[in-house]
Amino acid sequence: MSTEILSLKIDELHGELEKIETDLLLIVIDHKVLALYDKELDFSTIKNKKVIIWKATDGEKTKSLAEYEACTDYFLSRDIHRRAHLVAIGGGAISDFSGFVAATLLRGISWSVIPTTLLSMVDASIGGKVGINSKQGKNLLGVFHEPTKIYLCESFLKTLPAVELISGKGEVLKYGLLSKEIEELILKKAPLAEIISACIDYKKMIVLKDLKEAGERKFLNLGHSFGHGLERIYQISHGEAVILGTFLIFLMNDRKDLILALKELMRKIELGPLQSPWRGKSLPVDDLLYYLNKDKKKTENDRLDLILLEKVGSPFIQSTEIKKIMGLLEERKDDIKNFSL
Amino acid sequence: MSTEILSLKIDELHGELEKIETDLLLIVIDHKVLALYDKELDFSTIKNKKVIIWKATDGEKTKSLAEYEACTDYFLSRDIHRRAHLVAIGGGAISDFSGFVAATLLRGISWSVIPTTLLSMVDASIGGKVGINSKQGKNLLGVFHEPTKIYLCESFLKTLPAVELISGKGEVLKYGLLSKEIEELILKKAPLAEIISACIDYKKMIVLKDLKEAGERKFLNLGHSFGHGLERIYQISHGEAVILGTFLIFLMNDRKDLILALKELMRKIELGPLQSPWRGKSLPVDDLLYYLNKDKKKTENDRLDLILLEKVGSPFIQSTEIKKIMGLLEERKDDIKNFSL
Repeated sequence: MSTEILSLKIDELHGELEKIETDLLLIVIDHKVLALYDKELDFSTIKNKKVIIWKATDGEKTKSLAEYEACTDYFLSRDIHRRAHLVAIGGGAISDFSGFVAATLLRGISWSVIPTTLLSMVDASIGGKVGINSKQGKNLLGVFHEPTKIYLCESFLKTLPAVELISGKGEVLKYGLLSKEIEELILKKAPLAEIISACIDYKKMIVLKDLKEAGERKFLNLGHSFGHGLERIYQISHGEAVILGTFLIFLMNDRKDLILALKELMRKIELGPLQSPWRGKSLPVDDLLYYLNKDKKKTENDRLDLILLEKVGSPFIQSTEIKKIMGLLEERKDDIKNFSL
Repeated sequence: MSTEILSLKIDELHGELEKIETDLLLIVIDHKVLALYDKELDFSTIKNKKVIIWKATDGEKTKSLAEYEACTDYFLSRDIHRRAHLVAIGGGAISDFSGFVAATLLRGISWSVIPTTLLSMVDASIGGKVGINSKQGKNLLGVFHEPTKIYLCESFLKTLPAVELISGKGEVLKYGLLSKEIEELILKKAPLAEIISACIDYKKMIVLKDLKEAGERKFLNLGHSFGHGLERIYQISHGEAVILGTFLIFLMNDRKDLILALKELMRKIELGPLQSPWRGKSLPVDDLLYYLNKDKKKTENDRLDLILLEKVGSPFIQSTEIKKIMGLLEERKDDIKNFSL
């Protein structure tokens, strides 16, 4: 199965949802998105389908077991069946959560996504990595469940808060480092819609090669091993954390050339200047180690698969002892202490 | 992927667990089983593997989101990784729960089962239907996640409580109605081990034909649509509820021949006589309707796929309006009121 991508305008969404082959739509929608687009998204006029709507709370807060219980309970108490189709409308947290709900409701129903943030347009849902957070860390409970369709409406970005836009750009930059073609699009300041499509195509290509995340798919984790920890320690956005995580990997490996490439991409996509949240203080290595140890990309007890680049467009997996990572971070602690991107 | 079945003695289990290709075993074990077999199952002496043990509470109580949260939290806080292998030891509730934990932990780790009840030996785990209960009904949250191996130790049955043995026999009878071959084994009073193997082979054959439960696999639900409701309304065992559910289907369809066949199988397997828990009173049709409406086998809002037999060994799916089912139960209410099997 492969996810179909459909680019369309917001006012075409209604007609597309009517085409879905089911008599029962379960909608999981970010409450803020519903408030902003209540006219365009009015589900009450959808023909020939019963529609049940769950308004999800903000972002990562949604990805808890408590919300999972409340949401599944809500749907299950409303006479649903296995041929129901779930539609997730919101950012990456909403689609991670909704996909997990769809995957586990009545042992799995089909689902689609309408991403409303830049981050979720370029990154979420393709490949079907869905899940929720445990007290022990992000995304530790989840499965693979590919959506049927992703409906891409760039115009949702008009109402996107600045911090979310920065976060999305951070993830776009990751693709700019992984793919020479995307780097070139960013450097020549191509329209955002074109860059988004290129990111999705790249991810589709990688995921198709590696559905269960054994090999190439790990490339997409560039910057994420440290990023997930930084995101939680400093409560910064995902994209920002990924850039900082990528920077740390480059610095650890003494790759000034890659740091320069990253800076140039940031300038062209109008992101930054970015200062580290630990500026002037030491990187909290022990806290970071705590999250690394919980990171699901870990394959053996004492090793971690980090993603590095030979050069822009040529990523590879570097299986590294956690002890060694800690040593390298310690070695370069002065560079890490004070930097800006 | 297909599950491998291994028949062995309890004292051979230890060596088999050592052979599993992982450095980390996560064990989910029914606390009563651990208490009864603490010597035979001593995991502390397993070589070259770290072993983490979760003692599960009794039966269906385990299949809650609260237990799911506690168990996954317990494992995730103990430095686990994706190549860990989970082993479920207990009855069907333990394997349903454990399989769901394995399926969703770090987006899925491999798992195996050591069933310790007759019911779970003949029925659980093959085909990978795993899940937990919602407030709204049984098994409403779940996925498909096939175990790598099922280790079959008949000797666990020696310590099985009588009520559990009855429950298991109920499920064996279901297979006796679905398969002519198994009916004959029961009628000629073949050894239990032989009957168990035949049930597993039948289920494997059905599941192989129909992994996602679209067609033949529904045969295995014979008696379950009513059974699940009866089990909850009267707090009776699963197998007993399945027999009563099967009886209701036969009665609704006025199939005296099948009722006779069921009675003969019950006599040969030394089960019964069985009286209905509603004896002398009316069947609580409204309560039953409540559970039927929540039943995940329902495919459209107003219809239900019931399983019926042309004759023993020849099941078929009968898509029936819920309204019609209610009418038939009403029509035969006097027969239903007083019967024994």
